[in-house]
Amino acid sequence: MQLPTYDDVIAAAARLEGHAHRTPVLRSATADARWGAQFFFKCENFQRMGAFKFRGAFNALSKFDAAQRKAGAIAFSSGNHAQAMALSARLLGMPAVIVMPKDAPAAKLAATRGYGAEVVLYDRFTEDREAVTRQLATERGMTMIPPYDHPDVIAGQGTAAKELFEDVGPLDRLYVCMGGGGLTSGSALAARALSPQCEVYGVEPEAGNDGQQSLRAGKIITIPTPQTIADGAQTQHLGEYTFAIIRRDVKDVVTVSDAQLVEAMRFFAERMKMVVEPTGGLAFAAACEAASGEVNSLKGQRVGVLISGGNVDLARYAQLLTG
Amino acid sequence: MQLPTYDDVIAAAARLEGHAHRTPVLRSATADARWGAQFFFKCENFQRMGAFKFRGAFNALSKFDAAQRKAGAIAFSSGNHAQAMALSARLLGMPAVIVMPKDAPAAKLAATRGYGAEVVLYDRFTEDREAVTRQLATERGMTMIPPYDHPDVIAGQGTAAKELFEDVGPLDRLYVCMGGGGLTSGSALAARALSPQCEVYGVEPEAGNDGQQSLRAGKIITIPTPQTIADGAQTQHLGEYTFAIIRRDVKDVVTVSDAQLVEAMRFFAERMKMVVEPTGGLAFAAACEAASGEVNSLKGQRVGVLISGGNVDLARYAQLLTG
Repeated sequence: MQLPTYDDVIAAAARLEGHAHRTPVLRSATADARWGAQFFFKCENFQRMGAFKFRGAFNALSKFDAAQRKAGAIAFSSGNHAQAMALSARLLGMPAVIVMPKDAPAAKLAATRGYGAEVVLYDRFTEDREAVTRQLATERGMTMIPPYDHPDVIAGQGTAAKELFEDVGPLDRLYVCMGGGGLTSGSALAARALSPQCEVYGVEPEAGNDGQQSLRAGKIITIPTPQTIADGAQTQHLGEYTFAIIRRDVKDVVTVSDAQLVEAMRFFAERMKMVVEPTGGLAFAAACEAASGEVNSLKGQRVGVLISGGNVDLARYAQLLTG
Repeated sequence: MQLPTYDDVIAAAARLEGHAHRTPVLRSATADARWGAQFFFKCENFQRMGAFKFRGAFNALSKFDAAQRKAGAIAFSSGNHAQAMALSARLLGMPAVIVMPKDAPAAKLAATRGYGAEVVLYDRFTEDREAVTRQLATERGMTMIPPYDHPDVIAGQGTAAKELFEDVGPLDRLYVCMGGGGLTSGSALAARALSPQCEVYGVEPEAGNDGQQSLRAGKIITIPTPQTIADGAQTQHLGEYTFAIIRRDVKDVVTVSDAQLVEAMRFFAERMKMVVEPTGGLAFAAACEAASGEVNSLKGQRVGVLISGGNVDLARYAQLLTG
């Protein structure tokens, strides 16, 4: 297994140039004053299709050879990876099939179709999505791109942290929202190269701490699908690539509660005027927790916060803001 | 009456350096595709205290001499100017008094006090806020800074458009949210200097089109306080300075309905992941209207959209998103 390196992140950044947004890094004097640190918020909620996932998908699809491009790309996802793949395929002029559960929210099906992808439905209760996808991939000669455990996906996701370090310089800590570990491992590659002293933390929802367990156990631990409002982090396990990098380059994996996520979402809306999805609140919630202990472990530090995305249904969002 | 010039905007930018955020310019592929133009969104909702008003207030207070600084600044406002003055005074180490109505929302009173200002309450039904303010100013020797009709305020507000043109180059059109005309007139000064061909449009709520009427009449028209959700644009008339600049440098003043403002707010939340206050939706709502006529008058154009702020109570915001 050949792990991706920072050179792959650099190559990914060149492929993304002119296609992905270089998202802004926002500051908050209120956050700095309240928690006694200097925060740098890298806002991937402002990325195309509303999440960092565009970076990895576009990078992976950009590397297809002529035959792969002709047959197109396939993925299974009911989340941001679906839209990232659909949009990237459209921009690169290739067909895309996204395998989604029959009972996925109508808005998500429509959004994926809106980006021009063919949506193939499966029954969550009687069919295995991986098997459905693999069979289709074989039949149509399409290349399957998984949501996180792929070197090109990891390298693509790493470009967000690369931009952050380029824009603000070295950091003491970097908190990253973590599901399957694609963003966390990519960020760790960038941190190792651009800010070697920076401690990188992956942040999971309490209910889905498979990554934390895996780090403690020294091997990938699989858990049942966790119940959490952080729908982008409802992963059951890390991948082979992501775990290897996280184990090597990440300081620790920490967790936060759903209540802390809601608090982070409200802070983002009220004080920073940003819509952030529940999963996107993981990193900041963990940073606040670290600053709120008996000893503020962030005191005087330069702290990066990688916000993963902003895709949340408006009715649901309104409910979480006020509920 | 000596009107401010672009040189004053340049001087204001130098004073604001390191104090105001250089807010990002965001793009939206969805907006571009839907309306057939290239939009550049200047996001003053990400400005300190959540609105462009910080620029004008800080610039005005920065110019105080030693005696003025010692006595401090005074203003009447129940909106963003109150917080802008309070924060600017705190940053510059001078006292501030803000005259606010007794029945102002508790959150607004608390926010203004939170920035360290002394809040003096008056009765909206029995007292005249200007008279109350002037009397206090005289008693305490404080300098009164009005919310828009002041050369230093106008020059400060102009720094937002200055940054926009510096970042993205010349534009064909620039839409600006308009209440008393401080942001619009400042933006027009910047446009005239940096993108002379750019047509600048001020945008008012339908219910409060005093600016539009004034432009047509060739003199300042005063209207009763308009009923609109755009609370930042509930002004009764333009100022002497702002009207003179708007008359000279602004192409036209157009209006949009409250329903169009809500639509704009939803677009910002859903597609651009931004919290924008009702007043902040004025500029984009007008641009959409221009693009939606029988002939799309924005087709192929480079269009700037100046978003004024993001200060909206979360419960109210949730209601507007879903109502």
